[in-house]
Amino acid sequence: MANDPAASLAAAFDPERFRARGHALVDLLADHLAGIAARPVLAWLEPEAQRERFASLLAAGGGEAAFEELARRALEGAIQLHHPRFLGHQVTPPLPVAALAELLTAFLNQSLAVYEMSPAATAIEAAVVRWMAGALRLGERADGLLTSGGSLGNLTALLAARRAYTGHDVWHEGSAGGPRLALLASAEAHYSVSRAARIMGLGREGVVALAGDERLKLRPEALGPALDEASRRGLTVFALVANACSTAAGVYDPLEPLADFCRAKGLWLHVDGAHGAAAALSPRYRALVRGIERADSVVWDAHKMLLQPSLVTGVLFREGARAGETFSQEASYLLGRSAASEPHNLSHRTLECTKPALGLRLYATLLVHGEALLADHVTAAYDRARELAALLEASPDFELALPPESNIVCFRHRPPGLADEEALDAHQERLRRALLERGELYLVQARVRGRLHLRTTLLQPFTRARDLAALLDALRAAAAAI
Amino acid sequence: MANDPAASLAAAFDPERFRARGHALVDLLADHLAGIAARPVLAWLEPEAQRERFASLLAAGGGEAAFEELARRALEGAIQLHHPRFLGHQVTPPLPVAALAELLTAFLNQSLAVYEMSPAATAIEAAVVRWMAGALRLGERADGLLTSGGSLGNLTALLAARRAYTGHDVWHEGSAGGPRLALLASAEAHYSVSRAARIMGLGREGVVALAGDERLKLRPEALGPALDEASRRGLTVFALVANACSTAAGVYDPLEPLADFCRAKGLWLHVDGAHGAAAALSPRYRALVRGIERADSVVWDAHKMLLQPSLVTGVLFREGARAGETFSQEASYLLGRSAASEPHNLSHRTLECTKPALGLRLYATLLVHGEALLADHVTAAYDRARELAALLEASPDFELALPPESNIVCFRHRPPGLADEEALDAHQERLRRALLERGELYLVQARVRGRLHLRTTLLQPFTRARDLAALLDALRAAAAAI
Repeated sequence: MANDPAASLAAAFDPERFRARGHALVDLLADHLAGIAARPVLAWLEPEAQRERFASLLAAGGGEAAFEELARRALEGAIQLHHPRFLGHQVTPPLPVAALAELLTAFLNQSLAVYEMSPAATAIEAAVVRWMAGALRLGERADGLLTSGGSLGNLTALLAARRAYTGHDVWHEGSAGGPRLALLASAEAHYSVSRAARIMGLGREGVVALAGDERLKLRPEALGPALDEASRRGLTVFALVANACSTAAGVYDPLEPLADFCRAKGLWLHVDGAHGAAAALSPRYRALVRGIERADSVVWDAHKMLLQPSLVTGVLFREGARAGETFSQEASYLLGRSAASEPHNLSHRTLECTKPALGLRLYATLLVHGEALLADHVTAAYDRARELAALLEASPDFELALPPESNIVCFRHRPPGLADEEALDAHQERLRRALLERGELYLVQARVRGRLHLRTTLLQPFTRARDLAALLDALRAAAAAI
Repeated sequence: MANDPAASLAAAFDPERFRARGHALVDLLADHLAGIAARPVLAWLEPEAQRERFASLLAAGGGEAAFEELARRALEGAIQLHHPRFLGHQVTPPLPVAALAELLTAFLNQSLAVYEMSPAATAIEAAVVRWMAGALRLGERADGLLTSGGSLGNLTALLAARRAYTGHDVWHEGSAGGPRLALLASAEAHYSVSRAARIMGLGREGVVALAGDERLKLRPEALGPALDEASRRGLTVFALVANACSTAAGVYDPLEPLADFCRAKGLWLHVDGAHGAAAALSPRYRALVRGIERADSVVWDAHKMLLQPSLVTGVLFREGARAGETFSQEASYLLGRSAASEPHNLSHRTLECTKPALGLRLYATLLVHGEALLADHVTAAYDRARELAALLEASPDFELALPPESNIVCFRHRPPGLADEEALDAHQERLRRALLERGELYLVQARVRGRLHLRTTLLQPFTRARDLAALLDALRAAAAAI
């Protein structure tokens, strides 16, 4: 191979090899999908052993035939998101059509930095952004961008908020010597909000974290006093971050009174709807996001509730022009002078320069399956959480943390005689570990009101009542075995 | 379809539909690849017309049969990176095996936030990071992460540098009231460096931009005076950013004397090797990155010179522990207390929380084709730039901006009688626009020493001498037609 580099390169790009390998991979994946229920959700292996497995494969050298072996090991060593008993984190089993759209995306490798490098893909992103903004009813002036995940989305939106703050031009003047800026946010906000604040140089005091009510929702009446208190501490609040919904317990903040407050105080309202903005699609659950249309910015991950492979996050602005104002810079090798003069060159809007066609998968989904499929999925998932909650409430040995609003359910196993809180925490952790290593069923954990709870996000379209019952039984069996 | 949501969802995940659609897509792409040379590089359409094309397709409603129509339109509306006459930006035609790895990645949708959600993928990322660090000879203690692009990579590395700065703990204390921090960087640095500084709240003065020598390289002897001058202006410099290579003209800064300077002054050395770190793979060109092994951090995009679809960027730290120190936060629903206690949970290291298996495509490439293929590709691409430079120097109607060090070549068409600099700038712009709209050949532009130049990155494995000659002829023809 080393003897003729040009021939080796040509062979690596050979269309017929691609065709044969592509067909074989499609068959492998289709067979895998067809046989998913017979597999464990997770074939547990300690991190070091897993690491060795792939280090040695690479060290052994591969060659043409090794791709299939890699694919098999990647399938075996994966958590099976398509499994009915995947009840874990907010990561969705991707729709097959969306996965195939990713092959098209990767093959074309368009870069959304500039229109020339991605003509169709730029148009596709525009269509997807318009659809997202429309679903949230953000109005005719709305616009936005797609970016690589909710954390980057929150950072992008909060940078826009800082840019919009007129008291001090941090983008140009820097923050040393300026006011001590801060955000108001729920104590339940995702860690990426505090991470964004720290990245921006706001420090630990850059997020004023507000305790929620008994349902963990932001209390509108607490905002005024919090703002005054922040001011007394020398902080200048420029934005409020609301959850729709929160990560740990899946709770929606009351957006309408929060929007009223922000309007009255001149604050930017950012809604972290990474997970739960999708409720906007469901006639049954739309009321949960009432008021989201008044947000200045919203983050919405399509890889959570919209059945898309990660990462594809919408950052949506009610005043669309904000999308082009967050970053403003010159780069003669790439861009013209301003976002306004070239709205089709999307790297004005995104932290990314080169950026793949993130929107293609969602566009393909909407085109082939229609919005109704996504709406039905959201409704079914949220319904299922209520079904699980009812089951837990009917079970004296389980305790529901709070009635689910979204499809996230937190609960504890509470065996008779175990009342000490520390011991209860440890008990949940042991149960979860037992299930993890057994691999028949996957769920996660989170602290709610300071105590450790078991946690599930019901976003698997194939989870049925029998699987929910099996979850409780598996936990009871694990508890009995401890 | 709307009548039975569960049946619609089941149908959308049907393995046999996936199989049929997958085979059809693979055939479409293989045929496209086989026929690539007969297509235009770019079938130019104005942004608005393109936008309408995809808005109307979606509005018309699609259904099962629409995926193929979408794929056809996406292919037609794409810039053809696999075309021998794609001579534009630093975005590579992806290897077919890497594109297929993306299908596997998307289908499995593993999240690298935590090991449990991505056991094999986490091991694969570790192998890829180890390979990258090894190629750069960063030593046994090196470690790192993969992230969504070079801009995010530069931000991540510079956050690590700020964290390592011991004079003021910006992460916890915030920057208001702290010193006015700044970076030293080449005036040729990519815009993402200044963007990162502004995101971090350093403002426009957060980057002290140094003019290069006549070859646009950082002058080591200028660093001491620049540091003193920054200090006089009240700035506290905490890091130096070097290019390997620069974006516009593809120039390598002299890393060894820069490393000496940083060691003497206690500064963090960050090397932006997004494009040119790949020279480390080539025996012929390795000397260009001599000293890179002394960097505190390096950013290296596999989607530039390693034939990978975007985005996959390595952020590599000579002191591997730095990888886990950049961000430090708690999130009970996800993470344990510290990166050191759980090195396998990668969201301690990355700005992303959910993150796809970015490393799988590069792992597959190394496994199937071997490192030698990538090394040969780099050598051939860099060789080709010298070939083009020779051709330009032999042509009195062309002017080379500077002898290429990498595979980026900047030059001007200089017709007899056109001497005015403004007129020459406008002439280059007109030529480029003519080529763009004709679509037979794609190249870009950049300012070098303030003047507009034509610019090409020769990273197309199928570009040959005849294509380079065609480039000059096409420019001459366009000039004659103006």
